[in-house]
Amino acid sequence: MPRLRLALAQVDTVVGDLAANVARVRAAVAEAAAAGADLVALPEMCLTGYPVEDLALRPSFVAASQAAVRQLADAVAADGHGEVVVVVGYLDQDVDAAGQDVHRTGRPSLASQNCAAVVHRGEVVARYAKNHLPNAGVFDEQRIFTPGTHGQRVNVRGVDVAVLVCEDLWRDGGVTAQLAEAEHDPGLVLVLNASPYEQGKHRVRYELCRSRAAETGCTVAYVNLVGGQDELVFDGQSLVVAPDGEVLAQAPQFAEHVLVLDLDLPTGATEAGPGRLYDRVTLDAPTRPEPPDRLRPPPVEPVEECEEVYRALVLGLRDYARKNGFADVVLGLSGGIDSALVATLAVDALGAGHVHTVAMPTRYSSEHSLADAADLAARQGTQHRVVAVQPMVDAFVQGLDLTGLAEENVQARVRGVVLMGISNSEGQLVLAPGNKSELATGYSTIYGDAVGGFGPIKDVPKTLVWRLARWRNADAESRGEQPPIPVSSIDKPPSAELAPGQVDSDSLPDYELLDAVVDGYVVGDLGHADLVAGGAEVAVVDRVVRLVDRAEWKRRQYPLGTKISAKAFGRDRRLPVTNRWVEPAALD
Amino acid sequence: MPRLRLALAQVDTVVGDLAANVARVRAAVAEAAAAGADLVALPEMCLTGYPVEDLALRPSFVAASQAAVRQLADAVAADGHGEVVVVVGYLDQDVDAAGQDVHRTGRPSLASQNCAAVVHRGEVVARYAKNHLPNAGVFDEQRIFTPGTHGQRVNVRGVDVAVLVCEDLWRDGGVTAQLAEAEHDPGLVLVLNASPYEQGKHRVRYELCRSRAAETGCTVAYVNLVGGQDELVFDGQSLVVAPDGEVLAQAPQFAEHVLVLDLDLPTGATEAGPGRLYDRVTLDAPTRPEPPDRLRPPPVEPVEECEEVYRALVLGLRDYARKNGFADVVLGLSGGIDSALVATLAVDALGAGHVHTVAMPTRYSSEHSLADAADLAARQGTQHRVVAVQPMVDAFVQGLDLTGLAEENVQARVRGVVLMGISNSEGQLVLAPGNKSELATGYSTIYGDAVGGFGPIKDVPKTLVWRLARWRNADAESRGEQPPIPVSSIDKPPSAELAPGQVDSDSLPDYELLDAVVDGYVVGDLGHADLVAGGAEVAVVDRVVRLVDRAEWKRRQYPLGTKISAKAFGRDRRLPVTNRWVEPAALD
Repeated sequence: MPRLRLALAQVDTVVGDLAANVARVRAAVAEAAAAGADLVALPEMCLTGYPVEDLALRPSFVAASQAAVRQLADAVAADGHGEVVVVVGYLDQDVDAAGQDVHRTGRPSLASQNCAAVVHRGEVVARYAKNHLPNAGVFDEQRIFTPGTHGQRVNVRGVDVAVLVCEDLWRDGGVTAQLAEAEHDPGLVLVLNASPYEQGKHRVRYELCRSRAAETGCTVAYVNLVGGQDELVFDGQSLVVAPDGEVLAQAPQFAEHVLVLDLDLPTGATEAGPGRLYDRVTLDAPTRPEPPDRLRPPPVEPVEECEEVYRALVLGLRDYARKNGFADVVLGLSGGIDSALVATLAVDALGAGHVHTVAMPTRYSSEHSLADAADLAARQGTQHRVVAVQPMVDAFVQGLDLTGLAEENVQARVRGVVLMGISNSEGQLVLAPGNKSELATGYSTIYGDAVGGFGPIKDVPKTLVWRLARWRNADAESRGEQPPIPVSSIDKPPSAELAPGQVDSDSLPDYELLDAVVDGYVVGDLGHADLVAGGAEVAVVDRVVRLVDRAEWKRRQYPLGTKISAKAFGRDRRLPVTNRWVEPAALD
Repeated sequence: MPRLRLALAQVDTVVGDLAANVARVRAAVAEAAAAGADLVALPEMCLTGYPVEDLALRPSFVAASQAAVRQLADAVAADGHGEVVVVVGYLDQDVDAAGQDVHRTGRPSLASQNCAAVVHRGEVVARYAKNHLPNAGVFDEQRIFTPGTHGQRVNVRGVDVAVLVCEDLWRDGGVTAQLAEAEHDPGLVLVLNASPYEQGKHRVRYELCRSRAAETGCTVAYVNLVGGQDELVFDGQSLVVAPDGEVLAQAPQFAEHVLVLDLDLPTGATEAGPGRLYDRVTLDAPTRPEPPDRLRPPPVEPVEECEEVYRALVLGLRDYARKNGFADVVLGLSGGIDSALVATLAVDALGAGHVHTVAMPTRYSSEHSLADAADLAARQGTQHRVVAVQPMVDAFVQGLDLTGLAEENVQARVRGVVLMGISNSEGQLVLAPGNKSELATGYSTIYGDAVGGFGPIKDVPKTLVWRLARWRNADAESRGEQPPIPVSSIDKPPSAELAPGQVDSDSLPDYELLDAVVDGYVVGDLGHADLVAGGAEVAVVDRVVRLVDRAEWKRRQYPLGTKISAKAFGRDRRLPVTNRWVEPAALD
């Protein structure tokens, strides 16, 4: 069996910054080459960034991506790494698209394709177009891409490497079934991915790789993108799985990494028969001594659930800020748990010197709120200030004679205007502190606490907000550090403090009950009967479902935030605002 | 040739209100039956409303739609109209879906389908699932539906009627090609549609019907939905086109209507051969005297471009308000043209008594602004008030020491807080006055003038705003009425009036130049070189493209508004916020 030194390079590239992405990939190839790699694989569409959405429909962008892959080929050769075989994801068109439907919308039909290029000795020696296009959840690939229709194999040092892209691996009866049925097995199935993070998704990905390795009888190498892009965070964690299911290597989560390992793989057929469903290219390679010891990277320790989510949120926030040109963020600190957690995430993402916190007390703010906000700022060293907003609130309340809900909302909106005023003057990104329970039920003030360019915990249910805060404090303590979040912010009953003595439980069910119904209704698409069958009280289901349905218009105007669940508010869940559907109550 | 009396019933139904939709369809069937119709066709998915988006993925909703079509069948029979053949669009599942890919997202795989039911004598006698699913522009049908794989014909009084749904008619080489190649031509091609309005789209639809009538050699009957739904407005204008391209009948635009006409059509084959790609059902019909004179409705007069757009905007706004439970709207009146046009649309949509206008002068507001706002309110009889906002602005400017852009924005945001305060107190829907040129360039204040539940002219470029205002005034004059919009609001140089002497041309290119570039870049997906080749100056292209790219985050938080162009901001154009792509400048 030939021994192949494989590198899986999980990189964090930026949508649209093709020059920087070429440079990033070039550096990763150099790192792999320095480690003696024969073959280096990079993630799906990492040269353009991912997802590019409707940029894929713009001819100038497609042309730039085509040029970028040629630039990469030149650069790798110029660096003296031309013998390394590089497999890299990018955007191309008309690579492999026989008999496709033509779009009918009057747009130029580009036949854009989600592609992998095989680069060797300064040339693009093969191109593969993704055969299976996901079009559910956060994915719109059937909107923007034309599917490829053929497989692609590359023979490297005698080993046939089958190249796939992401969804190709997920689809039953598709490309992997063709591999399983092929006359000649490939020696390695190499999959370029941009698979977004969801809680616990690494287990799903491992099971997928394991089952495809068993189906095809091949080792499966899975390289995944890393980094935040709008609502999505890609978590890397590239892995290699043997036909028997053994994990041969795994890269860390939420960090760039070049994973290098040796694989002893079966030799490919020298000639494929007629009627095969794939193209094949054989690459020359200079002889080199077999590596004496088989290189195997150390195993990666599994991460606890709260830590995993926390790190996803940190990376999502850091990359949103960085990639959009913000060094600093600003947010209101109420003394409550949501803004405390967001501030802590921001400090971990950007450093305390770049986090500006603002306490904005009104007459309904409690003593402990101001104290808890100041305590958090002191513990973490944020750039803290207090802005007395009662005079501004009074100007509205008196000028408009507001009472009740209108008066409550005006307090939140005045705070929003203050934060935007600071941002306009000083240039920070405003963070919105809303959590998923709040987004679900509309328990927030639009243009008030919903103000911001990014909502870091938008997909985090309130019960998980508390768990993350407790985990973060405990993690600090375990390292002998001061817990960053005041315990009273975690322990006190949650309140918007917009009216005397107000607490969330005046308006909402207990958060444990609420979050369970939100999860079933939003993530699970369950109807009333199924929610009740799942153990929720009828009255709670009625109330929560009605609140969720009515808040759609507010959610549409909410900032982007990192998806961590199986279904986040945003592109993942698309419901009309104008919608009179009422879930029919379960019959007894 | 049998004579068939056909009714095309274009109805305005509401997404999710299935009971009301059944009642609406029932009434339309009764109207058609009273006119002696043999066959009545209703629009695509009118029983559920359209588009339902991810509601299609919810089992409880699919079940309710299935129940609704049975309720309709019962109700029509109970009304004594059981002999009328009703073809109606609704949502079903597993009607016709052999060999489809299974979604892989972990959601229950419902195989929901966009269907037509044929109802006769109290029974659903045939069901057809749309074969071709649009997934571009505003459509996400490959996300939520499984395509059908077979055609459906219904023999009514000896005439074979082929039933199609919307995209089936648009796709080259699809279902219509099968009809053209079939051994036995149908006598009539009946298409249920939910085709959203775009400027001049009726010409495109006529050309489509004409070409398909020629391709198949059949008369084509096209029934379209009417009414507003979030970003979309459906314009009705159902039509019947003979094989030679003659328009046999046409329904009005933007209004519910039951179009009834007689068609002399060829008899269908009594038996279809084996291997055919469609199912077929033959319906009994009692003998009745042939209608003595052939019923032909009068022709519909074509409408001028401005009137067509104006009526689209009125219907979009009226239906958004009505279907979301708002009788009244509130908006700020600046004295400028945008808010003047929005107020006029609102008065035309809802009546002056339901339109609340608010002038909110600051120290930078000119005399003429207040006077023009008051003049418009007086001409139209809106519920007008003046709120002095300088004290509120001063509270922020002094409290935060704001200057420059931050001070400008605070004025707009204070106005936003005032409008939301009024809305919270009195219950109106807040309207945002932004036009497409503003949305494109980000020339607006987020959480300021961008505040609102609906943005009626969001897809109207500034140059078209002026044309619509002039048309509306001229139209009033032609009827001997007072023009509703003060001429000075139309004629004065546009200004945000947030700083002394400020006019839009300080910050933006001339609107004629700006709108041309926006149209090419946004609607046409043109790159820099093509924009310059189209006649725009390089400096203008550079500036506009940069502004458009940078404003994506603001647009994401903007309210919904009616689409009138080939590509509107919103679901029609999906670009990342985090996006460093810069259109490469044209080389000389």
